[in-house]
Amino acid sequence: MTKAGIIGASGYTGSELVRLLEMHPEVEIAAITSETHAGKKFSDLHPAYTDLVDHTLITSAQVKDVDLDVVFLALPHGVSMRFVEQFQERKIPIIDLSGDFRLSSPAVYEKWYKKDHSYPKGFENAVYGLPELNKAAISEAQLVANPGCYPTTCALALLPLAQEGKLKGQRIIIDAKSGVTGAGVKPKESTHFANVNDNFKAYGIKTHRHTVEIEETLSESSNSKMKVQFTPHLLPIDRGILATAYTTSEVISDDELQEIYHAAYYNHPFVRVVESPPEIKDVRGSNYCNVFPTYDERTGNIIVVSVIDNLMKGAAGQAIQNMNLMLQFDETAGLKAFPLKP
Amino acid sequence: MTKAGIIGASGYTGSELVRLLEMHPEVEIAAITSETHAGKKFSDLHPAYTDLVDHTLITSAQVKDVDLDVVFLALPHGVSMRFVEQFQERKIPIIDLSGDFRLSSPAVYEKWYKKDHSYPKGFENAVYGLPELNKAAISEAQLVANPGCYPTTCALALLPLAQEGKLKGQRIIIDAKSGVTGAGVKPKESTHFANVNDNFKAYGIKTHRHTVEIEETLSESSNSKMKVQFTPHLLPIDRGILATAYTTSEVISDDELQEIYHAAYYNHPFVRVVESPPEIKDVRGSNYCNVFPTYDERTGNIIVVSVIDNLMKGAAGQAIQNMNLMLQFDETAGLKAFPLKP
Amino acid sequence: MTKAGIIGASGYTGSELVRLLEMHPEVEIAAITSETHAGKKFSDLHPAYTDLVDHTLITSAQVKDVDLDVVFLALPHGVSMRFVEQFQERKIPIIDLSGDFRLSSPAVYEKWYKKDHSYPKGFENAVYGLPELNKAAISEAQLVANPGCYPTTCALALLPLAQEGKLKGQRIIIDAKSGVTGAGVKPKESTHFANVNDNFKAYGIKTHRHTVEIEETLSESSNSKMKVQFTPHLLPIDRGILATAYTTSEVISDDELQEIYHAAYYNHPFVRVVESPPEIKDVRGSNYCNVFPTYDERTGNIIVVSVIDNLMKGAAGQAIQNMNLMLQFDETAGLKAFPLKP
Amino acid sequence: MTKAGIIGASGYTGSELVRLLEMHPEVEIAAITSETHAGKKFSDLHPAYTDLVDHTLITSAQVKDVDLDVVFLALPHGVSMRFVEQFQERKIPIIDLSGDFRLSSPAVYEKWYKKDHSYPKGFENAVYGLPELNKAAISEAQLVANPGCYPTTCALALLPLAQEGKLKGQRIIIDAKSGVTGAGVKPKESTHFANVNDNFKAYGIKTHRHTVEIEETLSESSNSKMKVQFTPHLLPIDRGILATAYTTSEVISDDELQEIYHAAYYNHPFVRVVESPPEIKDVRGSNYCNVFPTYDERTGNIIVVSVIDNLMKGAAGQAIQNMNLMLQFDETAGLKAFPLKP
Repeated sequence: MTKAGIIGASGYTGSELVRLLEMHPEVEIAAITSETHAGKKFSDLHPAYTDLVDHTLITSAQVKDVDLDVVFLALPHGVSMRFVEQFQERKIPIIDLSGDFRLSSPAVYEKWYKKDHSYPKGFENAVYGLPELNKAAISEAQLVANPGCYPTTCALALLPLAQEGKLKGQRIIIDAKSGVTGAGVKPKESTHFANVNDNFKAYGIKTHRHTVEIEETLSESSNSKMKVQFTPHLLPIDRGILATAYTTSEVISDDELQEIYHAAYYNHPFVRVVESPPEIKDVRGSNYCNVFPTYDERTGNIIVVSVIDNLMKGAAGQAIQNMNLMLQFDETAGLKAFPLKP
Repeated sequence: MTKAGIIGASGYTGSELVRLLEMHPEVEIAAITSETHAGKKFSDLHPAYTDLVDHTLITSAQVKDVDLDVVFLALPHGVSMRFVEQFQERKIPIIDLSGDFRLSSPAVYEKWYKKDHSYPKGFENAVYGLPELNKAAISEAQLVANPGCYPTTCALALLPLAQEGKLKGQRIIIDAKSGVTGAGVKPKESTHFANVNDNFKAYGIKTHRHTVEIEETLSESSNSKMKVQFTPHLLPIDRGILATAYTTSEVISDDELQEIYHAAYYNHPFVRVVESPPEIKDVRGSNYCNVFPTYDERTGNIIVVSVIDNLMKGAAGQAIQNMNLMLQFDETAGLKAFPLKP
Repeated sequence: MTKAGIIGASGYTGSELVRLLEMHPEVEIAAITSETHAGKKFSDLHPAYTDLVDHTLITSAQVKDVDLDVVFLALPHGVSMRFVEQFQERKIPIIDLSGDFRLSSPAVYEKWYKKDHSYPKGFENAVYGLPELNKAAISEAQLVANPGCYPTTCALALLPLAQEGKLKGQRIIIDAKSGVTGAGVKPKESTHFANVNDNFKAYGIKTHRHTVEIEETLSESSNSKMKVQFTPHLLPIDRGILATAYTTSEVISDDELQEIYHAAYYNHPFVRVVESPPEIKDVRGSNYCNVFPTYDERTGNIIVVSVIDNLMKGAAGQAIQNMNLMLQFDETAGLKAFPLKP
Repeated sequence: MTKAGIIGASGYTGSELVRLLEMHPEVEIAAITSETHAGKKFSDLHPAYTDLVDHTLITSAQVKDVDLDVVFLALPHGVSMRFVEQFQERKIPIIDLSGDFRLSSPAVYEKWYKKDHSYPKGFENAVYGLPELNKAAISEAQLVANPGCYPTTCALALLPLAQEGKLKGQRIIIDAKSGVTGAGVKPKESTHFANVNDNFKAYGIKTHRHTVEIEETLSESSNSKMKVQFTPHLLPIDRGILATAYTTSEVISDDELQEIYHAAYYNHPFVRVVESPPEIKDVRGSNYCNVFPTYDERTGNIIVVSVIDNLMKGAAGQAIQNMNLMLQFDETAGLKAFPLKP
């Protein structure tokens, strides 16, 4: 069995990685770390796993003595980079779930994340871990930067158009809506139940960091500089993102759109091109992304709606998918769970 | 006291009208109708009003014998029109909450509502009941077509720009999200709890009837033919609509935008121009609309976020506001309730 | 106008008091305090009140210079007691919303609240502010201890039985369920959205402080020592408490129960005895308590279900009701709002 | 591979069975029926399964020609009984998820279900499918009556006490709370989103059919006639049941209770005896039942809290568990999914 380490287990991404790896046919968990909770059992932090996951949490310092074949970094940005450095020295394949190596350069990172980058060398061989864009490169990568949750949803909505040259020079608007787990496990005012329940709001207008990640992906795949107006909103739900993307277009039929999308995702087992607007529960608890493109003759816009589970295809599920590719397992190993609906 | 009749009391709009009129200082309810529940007490249908509202429901035929000073039609479109005809004959001021007289002509109605209009004459003197657009005309109207919930939210988001000529020739995208009461009181698959809870979806893409209502309002106030890409979504909440509107613009500062919006809504007590993105609970249970405009230098877009309670400013509250204007009461009479938050 | 002070405005109880007092026909707000936010506007803390409530927050020290006719303490227990002392010296009528003076003695307080009481003298003339139990005494009180939210719901469920001697010697079980606002405005793990949404749990089993408050009320009104098994649960909703109470009984018909309950609440405008099981939305946003008693011949148990809005009849609404009694206003002044449903 | 048939695929239980059987290592689905939707694909009814489950629905008449090793009846009570008769004739092992054969006799059935039973013979060899009670009998059964969702939760809460003689002669109160999927897939007033969201109520007080099912199980396992006061409530969540059970007891320590419960469930892989009150999300999406017993010295009551996912351990998951026992598979085959939390 392949031995996996998970650095950072107190957050949602960490616990979701544990859940998925425990059910993975090729992998066993060799280490789970938490600085604050080292010494406790994983299930002390996550009581739903009582009697199911009995690992004792260790510190990241203790990981140095553990033999690992692959490591997942489920850490905040800014913290992750020094672990990347450390595990690269140990030559262990890394899937980094933070934002530290997703962008094209330290300079872009510093502009949008408003902090210095302590390990610029990492950018040299980091591969952006969106399998539907970079499958071959991921298969040979030692360091994969796992995409953000919004960028995954938005890129999968528009990639086929970008690759077909249908986005060229266009203004793109993406109105995105996310469940609350995207904001992390730590209680704060914006995630306080009574502030979210029966409520809805926009946030991060004009400034959200995922904007540049989306723009870089679409620019690269269309060979054209893209500007995206990205507006995230907070949904009163646990999991899931729905993005509604708008771009002007020449006349194109819905059949042509279906063809383009089906062709683009033919070899990609986790994208389902669908024929009516998808809903978040169609993918909840699974690694699927559902995408629905349509053209409005009246207005000349293409509208694309896409949905994912932000903790699965938007984080831990995609990380496992990347691991499968890096370690030459079946791409879907450990990720066959159907959506949980209702 | 002014005597009001409410035609159609089983739906959310009807019960909300009853709630508001019972607390109105100038009005008493003289008749509430329901064809299916005539003979029962209003509180039999709506147990929350037990011991509070003891009116007995009558049929619409029985209303002929009731002396009325004003009448509210809380009926489905297609049904409302024949009651408009009947009450116009009785020369009773009418506030029609259906879509039957909101549009510019029977022809437009027939195109978007896919049905014939049996009372085209009503269009002659119907006034579109958005006080922020038509206050003077409403004050003299005998027939007010109360705006749709989405059109109210969207028009209030963009009216100041339209009136200032800032929308001319522009492509407008409105991504709107509504609570479930907008879909009515009748149980159906799309409003079944497990289909909505922890879920989110788009619907009515490209075809929603409110599209044309929004376009007509913006076209009229900008003296320019407007195309709007309007996409509604279903939120897992009871009440409330949030619209996020996008339009390209010349360079304009946020200060200028605030000035334009404050100037436009100076005399309008129910619109609050705010300085950070509003949330739905900021207006829940009240007749307020909160509007937040901002300009993104990076992309050249103006983004406007607006929120209302769809049963209040989006339906019954606005109907009362219209009645206040028609009958020369204080515009805010009976509508002073603060938002209920949390 | 009567001048009211509100000590502590950052929590839900404080903001709800402000909302209610702003709409009260006899009262104006003269002071709102917040130690941490003094100098800011009330609406800076509570943006829903932008343009509606423009009071500037002051410190509690500054209140010494403000002329007040009545004061509300919306403070945590343990903090409230020293303000009671201070305002008693100023001879200002006090409604204390904390638990500091609800129990029969400092000794009982210290046992259940696990802390010393610094102002035992306050117990001498404190009146327990449940109008349905103590209306006359409240009318003459200078210090009213506003009941807890659970104790209000539970006492109103069982008072008629207690007063009729129907609880004597019986074992009482109360299984109660509360919305999240009962846990306060401060973000913590137990109120984090993803920990509450689509979830449900019991808490405080065997040890919740409200147990003794309920027992004292029922013991006093039945002249018999009562033991109550009280189990609270956390509902994924904002507002509202539903209590299901069980007690064994001799044979009694549902008609007799209705008679006993109607008789007990005849003069109490905020209790509605209903004939089918009530739901929380029947009272949301209002000061009503709905109570439904029934007897099960098969088992020999009386079952009573009662519901309130925990921020209204369970806190701020009841505080206003108490003020109305203390200052000889109409008992329902400022409290006429109907339930907000849906 | 074992060939399974599922009779009735439009409801939640049917779709959950399909989801579980598709992931089961020993079984393949040979037939899924729906009278109303025959000819459509399963994923037309349940779009979340698009591209995942491509079975075409057939009528129950067509099942006659399909070779089956086991059959699941996911049908309403009253309908199920005639299919039991038919499949017994074909000598196919049956798991019946309806209430038709759960009770001890046709007479009891007719009393509580208020309808005649057309196949009394079925009672002769029907085994009540609660593995924690009847594992040996289930292993040899041809007809298993899969327990109700509430009875599973309540029986697992109290079985250890019943078997130890700790319930003898006692009055038992069970206050239970269920998510909305328990009310079925069909839209109706009680499951309309705005009637459930931010709301809570009791229903079926004194009369719910599951009462007698619970009483029979507890009576049988304690050799003593049991009376249960069972009160269900409707939670604004999708999945899950939490039951809070109360019974008087002689003095017993929490350690003794833990011992009794651990001993009772030692060989039962899906019951987790826990040391603090469980919450519904601790088991959501899994086949686990978490049980927490405690004794209150102050009152002399034992309180037990138990939670399950009503569609899993309360329906389809337990049905698979029963199939595993009947067909001599590993009891946990196909049921290893961890809880989905958050």
